[in-house]
Amino acid sequence: MADLTLTTFDWIPEMRRGFVRDLRVRWALEEAGLPYRVASVPFGDRKAAHFAHQPFGQVPWLTDGDISIFESGAILLHLGGLSTALMPADPRGRSETMEWVFAALNSVEMASLPWIILKLTGNAGDTPTAKPLIDFLKLRLNRMEPVLAGREWLAGPFSVADILMSDVLRLVGRLDGLTNHPACRDYVARAASRPSFVKAHADQMAHFAAADCKAR
Amino acid sequence: MADLTLTTFDWIPEMRRGFVRDLRVRWALEEAGLPYRVASVPFGDRKAAHFAHQPFGQVPWLTDGDISIFESGAILLHLGGLSTALMPADPRGRSETMEWVFAALNSVEMASLPWIILKLTGNAGDTPTAKPLIDFLKLRLNRMEPVLAGREWLAGPFSVADILMSDVLRLVGRLDGLTNHPACRDYVARAASRPSFVKAHADQMAHFAAADCKAR
Repeated sequence: MADLTLTTFDWIPEMRRGFVRDLRVRWALEEAGLPYRVASVPFGDRKAAHFAHQPFGQVPWLTDGDISIFESGAILLHLGGLSTALMPADPRGRSETMEWVFAALNSVEMASLPWIILKLTGNAGDTPTAKPLIDFLKLRLNRMEPVLAGREWLAGPFSVADILMSDVLRLVGRLDGLTNHPACRDYVARAASRPSFVKAHADQMAHFAAADCKAR
Repeated sequence: MADLTLTTFDWIPEMRRGFVRDLRVRWALEEAGLPYRVASVPFGDRKAAHFAHQPFGQVPWLTDGDISIFESGAILLHLGGLSTALMPADPRGRSETMEWVFAALNSVEMASLPWIILKLTGNAGDTPTAKPLIDFLKLRLNRMEPVLAGREWLAGPFSVADILMSDVLRLVGRLDGLTNHPACRDYVARAASRPSFVKAHADQMAHFAAADCKAR
């Protein structure tokens, strides 16, 4: 029997709410119907105990009994092992889920995150420095577009791969990066309309809103 | 019994040799002592059959019987399931390997790759556009430094996590990005002195050199 605690920040600036990566874990837990607790660590003053669980000083991490896991990808694969609602049980289904999990994080997010940094720092214009990075994202989206036009979910049934890929693309869409990629937009909308996403998103927003109240 | 074929490009420009990602897979296969064949696809004219195996038109992919897997992270986890030389068998060891696999690809490489693009396009100077991305990598290396100063390998015994993390850091070092991070440099040197790395590297270089000869 899993004994699951998800740790996230106690507070986060308003513009990042709805996009903190604990959302990916909450969403997976809701899809699987697994019971869990939520714990908090200071956003401001990150202590040694925090770095012991998450060496980059980020969130989330998950504890399952006495095992502590960081990296949303690793956490989701761990949860995938606990529920076929998150990952098919057959070897082919598992390996397809696995490759799309890595595609989300190491092919698409690796291209989207630099673009997001450029956008948020006001540097995503058509300059010699920004252009190769903007083109990098475009290349990835241009390849995801036919993939997502041809299927509902990445690896057959809905899986952790879709939680990760749609969450990565959702932030791109939020910053108007999916204007020319309707299949990517539809996929994000499809994923975000799932009741488990809606609940996970509402829970994250409520968690940080409660922190605002306490601070008053 | 695994029936393994690794597919890579038939040729690649000289400056990229020694850093194509099939090296990660060759290295893992050598560590595990698993027999495998190497197949090639055109670097120049990428066909539909290529995209069917690797939707981004990249390499490598691995077939194991009738299962085909892309993304070096997914391939290495698949191989990890075939050999305890690549991933410990106990749940804690497996989950530690898993989190460092994702840390290599989604925390460190996600920061190193944009920096590499900036470097290779001659844009890694101290400009308002480049600085946030350069700082992003620095932040990650500053956190990896104490981690690697304190241990030989990431998850206890050598594992696929070390293949990925050291390969990511090796390219940073190649472009002089580890000058202020001696523990990261030592870790790369330690990993690259393993006989399986040396063989995998030599095999990749020979594979592409043979293509040059054929082209003459």
